[in-house]
Amino acid sequence: MTQNPNLVTLDAIHAAAARIAPYVSETPIVPLTPTGIGLKAESLHPIGAFKIRGAFNALLGLGEDERRRGVVAHSSGNHAQAVAYAAKKLGIQCTIVMPDNSSRVKLEATRYWGADVRLVKAAMRASTCERLARERDLVIIEPFNSLAIMAGTGTIGLEILKQCPDARFVTAPVSGGGLIGGLSAAIAQSNPVIQVIGVEPELANDAQRSFRAGRLVALSPDETGRTIADGLRVPQLGELPFANIKVFVRDIVTVTEDEIRQAMRRITAEARLIAEPSGAVALAGALKLGLEREKTVAILSGGNVEAGLYASIIGA
Amino acid sequence: MTQNPNLVTLDAIHAAAARIAPYVSETPIVPLTPTGIGLKAESLHPIGAFKIRGAFNALLGLGEDERRRGVVAHSSGNHAQAVAYAAKKLGIQCTIVMPDNSSRVKLEATRYWGADVRLVKAAMRASTCERLARERDLVIIEPFNSLAIMAGTGTIGLEILKQCPDARFVTAPVSGGGLIGGLSAAIAQSNPVIQVIGVEPELANDAQRSFRAGRLVALSPDETGRTIADGLRVPQLGELPFANIKVFVRDIVTVTEDEIRQAMRRITAEARLIAEPSGAVALAGALKLGLEREKTVAILSGGNVEAGLYASIIGA
Repeated sequence: MTQNPNLVTLDAIHAAAARIAPYVSETPIVPLTPTGIGLKAESLHPIGAFKIRGAFNALLGLGEDERRRGVVAHSSGNHAQAVAYAAKKLGIQCTIVMPDNSSRVKLEATRYWGADVRLVKAAMRASTCERLARERDLVIIEPFNSLAIMAGTGTIGLEILKQCPDARFVTAPVSGGGLIGGLSAAIAQSNPVIQVIGVEPELANDAQRSFRAGRLVALSPDETGRTIADGLRVPQLGELPFANIKVFVRDIVTVTEDEIRQAMRRITAEARLIAEPSGAVALAGALKLGLEREKTVAILSGGNVEAGLYASIIGA
Repeated sequence: MTQNPNLVTLDAIHAAAARIAPYVSETPIVPLTPTGIGLKAESLHPIGAFKIRGAFNALLGLGEDERRRGVVAHSSGNHAQAVAYAAKKLGIQCTIVMPDNSSRVKLEATRYWGADVRLVKAAMRASTCERLARERDLVIIEPFNSLAIMAGTGTIGLEILKQCPDARFVTAPVSGGGLIGGLSAAIAQSNPVIQVIGVEPELANDAQRSFRAGRLVALSPDETGRTIADGLRVPQLGELPFANIKVFVRDIVTVTEDEIRQAMRRITAEARLIAEPSGAVALAGALKLGLEREKTVAILSGGNVEAGLYASIIGA
């Protein structure tokens, strides 16, 4: 059988699981009482987001020489923190390019883990990252357009298959596609009865448009910058994630800003967990699809939100 | 060797662990990054608090006849929810007496689980419970002064011993003493190197006074009602918990209301978990004792807090 080389294999995901196991703990699925929905609490990692999985898998896959050169990455926040954290744990020099509209809590955390942080205009992040890599001979750690990253995020799928084997639906947020690309590859190739559904903010629905069109559709950073879900403002899916999404994902749906805020409130009250806006999007989608009585797992992708913003949403 | 019949045995705790296993999931220990402290996240149970453990152990220990008669309990909130939830799962009729100053979120949740809720003045809760038991032939499920309850809470200790065998300190909130009584019995009898330390609000320090005096000291409900930690307003330790505390607990320390609020903020920002005020008291104590760099587990006992109050604290 000919293999599409852009798809993440189950072997790669199982290898990632073994590789990252010493550094990344399994996260619990916490019930959203009294619904049938469970939240896969990726917010409970030390950096508060799922990105730790891909970052460790990518860094652990580097050769000796690459480790010595050091790494550079660009990210609005959680990938930044994840690469900085993993690099610190593995003793690798790390530079991070962040857009100047990044969440302050994510910026501070990235600095805390010892990364050399460079702030640039959002549109300049990728080009600045490439320039630094060239000038200083650094290895670029892609945020999502990478098989190593997706094999890492695929480990979420393996855990769900073990923790909740009778799940019927898994919903996940979509930004660059690294999360849902690996997750859906893990689940669809293990148990195709489970439907993986992507969820996006209406205000940043490039992935839904791409999915419907069958080809990559981009929004502008100004457009995607309108959503409160700061982790989902990437204006276009990566090519590799899109290849996996087309094969393994059932559909991509959208939610409003109000639905995102309401999901944050329900996660607080009914699961006693903290979701950043992007982290509540998958639950918002599950609720919109009427999955409260179905065996459903919604990925709570991260919990890094500024206290003032969070308080204003849940106290409303 | 003569056994003190008031002490919780390891056998009773292991039996409780086996009995409640089908109904109660293990909770994770979530790192308070970047400290050495882990939070035992008892807030992630379906009812948002540790009380589910004692409630299931007590109800599962009832005989057929007792189950048919139905149960009654009094509680300011989390025991109420726990008994209501466990009774519903086990098909047992349930009446709950709650003080009329109970947290609204706990009151509503208790009603949600189908309990017949009676609101009374705080000072009347125990006597009302006894009267209802007499009049309607109900079985009283004690909130804390019970070996069955403490054997249930002791299962937290077994989990800590397995999850974090190199812990040096475990801190836990103290109210009636059911949590720390069972917890300390489990830990001290398994690994006496680990020190179990109780933590109370300064404004409700009856347990500390009792511990120092070597005999039970009571405060008035008006006094203990001053603390924001609504779960810790019980004015006196139970006799059975006190017997265990005297033998198995290293010390009891107090924290201020500001320290409780600050611990709630740190749990939000550094562990992405939600603590009700009582649930943050153990961390507040660990921080006050300077245990940030020690291998320490702080019990996050519950996460049931009204959204408005919570928002006002973490947004401050």
